[in-house]
Amino acid sequence: MSEARKTDLYELTMAMSYVREEMTAPATFSLFVRDLPAERGFLVAAGLEPALDYLAGYRIGPDDVDAFAAALGRPARDLVPLLGTAFDGEVRAVPEGTVVFANEPLIEVTAPLPVAQLVETYVLNLLSHQTAVASKAARCVLAGAGRPVMDFGMRRTHGLQAGYDAARVGALVGFGGTSNVEAAAALGLPAIGTMAHSYVEAFHTEEAAFHAFARAHPGGPVTFLVDTYDTDAGVRTAARVIKSRGLGGNSAVRLDSGDLGALAARARRILDAAGLTRVRIVASGGLDEYRVNRLVREGAPIDVYAVGTKVGVSADAPYLDSAYKLVAYDGRPVMKLSSAKITAPGSKQIFRGQGCSDVIALRHEQAPSGHRPLMRPVMHGGRRMSEAPPLREAHERFAADVAQLPPEARRITGPLAPRPVFSDRLKSLTDQVRNRIESEILAPPERV
Amino acid sequence: MSEARKTDLYELTMAMSYVREEMTAPATFSLFVRDLPAERGFLVAAGLEPALDYLAGYRIGPDDVDAFAAALGRPARDLVPLLGTAFDGEVRAVPEGTVVFANEPLIEVTAPLPVAQLVETYVLNLLSHQTAVASKAARCVLAGAGRPVMDFGMRRTHGLQAGYDAARVGALVGFGGTSNVEAAAALGLPAIGTMAHSYVEAFHTEEAAFHAFARAHPGGPVTFLVDTYDTDAGVRTAARVIKSRGLGGNSAVRLDSGDLGALAARARRILDAAGLTRVRIVASGGLDEYRVNRLVREGAPIDVYAVGTKVGVSADAPYLDSAYKLVAYDGRPVMKLSSAKITAPGSKQIFRGQGCSDVIALRHEQAPSGHRPLMRPVMHGGRRMSEAPPLREAHERFAADVAQLPPEARRITGPLAPRPVFSDRLKSLTDQVRNRIESEILAPPERV
Repeated sequence: MSEARKTDLYELTMAMSYVREEMTAPATFSLFVRDLPAERGFLVAAGLEPALDYLAGYRIGPDDVDAFAAALGRPARDLVPLLGTAFDGEVRAVPEGTVVFANEPLIEVTAPLPVAQLVETYVLNLLSHQTAVASKAARCVLAGAGRPVMDFGMRRTHGLQAGYDAARVGALVGFGGTSNVEAAAALGLPAIGTMAHSYVEAFHTEEAAFHAFARAHPGGPVTFLVDTYDTDAGVRTAARVIKSRGLGGNSAVRLDSGDLGALAARARRILDAAGLTRVRIVASGGLDEYRVNRLVREGAPIDVYAVGTKVGVSADAPYLDSAYKLVAYDGRPVMKLSSAKITAPGSKQIFRGQGCSDVIALRHEQAPSGHRPLMRPVMHGGRRMSEAPPLREAHERFAADVAQLPPEARRITGPLAPRPVFSDRLKSLTDQVRNRIESEILAPPERV
Repeated sequence: MSEARKTDLYELTMAMSYVREEMTAPATFSLFVRDLPAERGFLVAAGLEPALDYLAGYRIGPDDVDAFAAALGRPARDLVPLLGTAFDGEVRAVPEGTVVFANEPLIEVTAPLPVAQLVETYVLNLLSHQTAVASKAARCVLAGAGRPVMDFGMRRTHGLQAGYDAARVGALVGFGGTSNVEAAAALGLPAIGTMAHSYVEAFHTEEAAFHAFARAHPGGPVTFLVDTYDTDAGVRTAARVIKSRGLGGNSAVRLDSGDLGALAARARRILDAAGLTRVRIVASGGLDEYRVNRLVREGAPIDVYAVGTKVGVSADAPYLDSAYKLVAYDGRPVMKLSSAKITAPGSKQIFRGQGCSDVIALRHEQAPSGHRPLMRPVMHGGRRMSEAPPLREAHERFAADVAQLPPEARRITGPLAPRPVFSDRLKSLTDQVRNRIESEILAPPERV
């Protein structure tokens, strides 16, 4: 199916009007997050690459026109002016993996006004969702403090595609693997699979289950889930099976419930006493960065953390306060004035200094001394300027950026995000546009 | 692409072992929610119909085997025993739209053990996600107290498919429309589209924008977004345009920011003073059931509530504590014992009495007097027993069920969910299985 009909109806009602009014001059929209969620010291830009794929393939076909007409309750002929519309614009963006803050544009789209408007819903959706999940996952990696963190989120994400996206952005921020078969196969990620409680229950005894599992996966790796009935007994059973089958170098036990720190300490003692010092301990079950952080700080002997639902849905911040705002039309900078949602006009650039001291400036300003620009051109004339880079590149960017963060932004509890400043020229333009709106549009107040 | 590879790896590692051990006797898995989120007095079952589509189409093809092998890092020949696997089982479920509570099975799947296991991830994902969002949306309908509630969530759901799903389950619980073009066209739902702030900003004045919008949508319906610059001035401008174009019978103003109750009251006065008593007021912007409830109770003159992000992601409860648990294998009831996550064994039925006084019983028990069974057969031999019913049917079921809820379950703040009781026979079976596990599997504790 064409992706063009995955859109909010108002994109169509506006585009129809723009076409009718011949308002097809270039417009620039800027996508940014107004405020970070309370428990975020930074965001990790994600979702750009699938958004560029969408833009590159955007085309309104005859079936879309029929769907549009059905949704609008109008004859298809009213929609014919939109038939064949493709995305033919320019895109500048921060690459995936970049650490960003409030008000910093993740992407700016410049295209004929109806086209730039039509793609809003899809682009806003992808970048908002994937940036939210990547930012949550990044905090898990920080909490793990060097221990591998794995993605087990697929079973309770918001649909299967969201599970795929979570696996992908998890890899982007440095997860060591994923349970997601589709994502692992498509992206070449390490896949992690153990067993469910149901597996143990299907056998007459836990020991029979563990032996059968080892038989099916000769040589390993094998991970035995030990908390189906009684965790300590399960660890002892696993140790017996591991020893008897010579799997000590390529096996693990998984704890999925209870007081994971205490259970891990007891499991380690049981395994070590059996001479199985290389058998690893995997923890799962409702983990997120807060619990991983506590377990790591307590010194829990857990070798691998498998995070799931709470990370896959970014449970404490399942959405971002993102916006896709018109900042210029036909050479004229524009902005929104009402209430607290004031936006800054004009196409922008982010300049990054040491320690993430960022300046949000107008696009063509000179970089302040010691600062480098973060946004770069990624599409020209509706075409990608390069192929999607490997995830590894985005990961390296993320790792470098995160190392620059001030410690208070990296904190798991009560993080403080750096606040970018606006350049003098951007502040001055904001004042000018505000004054123009107040004098030309709002004064004198007109009466009905 | 085949859907079979959208799965957690452990489904494969277990299935491979089951096939090897010739453990292909029938297994029954039961999917339920252990505990309701704090702010939920009930859940609305959703996601069954797409889950049945998945099961009916489930088939492991050659490409899937290749993907499985890649994820497992094993040669494809190791996966060949799974090639051609299709879902050939039985499914019993509560129909979509049914109001359910903690521990009540939404669906029970009975199939050869490897098959029933392989479909876990997908089925659990669909039912958990869609039930979570439907339950949130249902509370919005209750909060609206008869006023139309619309879905504007697509822009910040977790991917575009999640936006479609939210539109669908919104319709299921009685939303009056959606902004989602794809869902509106595919499901025949009323589509709602207004204009964005960018639209107003693209014109030199707000009045020019409103006139142009009306020109593009002659006869209406037209909704004017009035808070781009100054809300009161915007309402006056809209009133002027509506009067001059004779749109008083088919137009609305939309408030999207600020103190919606106070702004709506002023907007109503301005419109009424202009003789535009039939022009409606639409509110949007960060709405959820809590804010809708407050606005309705304050008597805000808002005619239509458009809820968005917070409902589309079920922001205060973005996941459910759901489980897909083996309850019987090869005629033997099974359960999990460790920690707090004890599950009740055996295939079940839910019997509903007056006021949602529910009894969770074994499948073949007699209904207690005055109770009716909620679960029904929906698939036989891997085939649907009937086509997917129209959404209207699910909506009617929801409406009837919700009317039966005790008032404290319907409350928006501090709801209390009814607690189903377990039948004596189910309690007795639970004790038996627990005793068997404790004597056969756990005692005497074995040492390494």
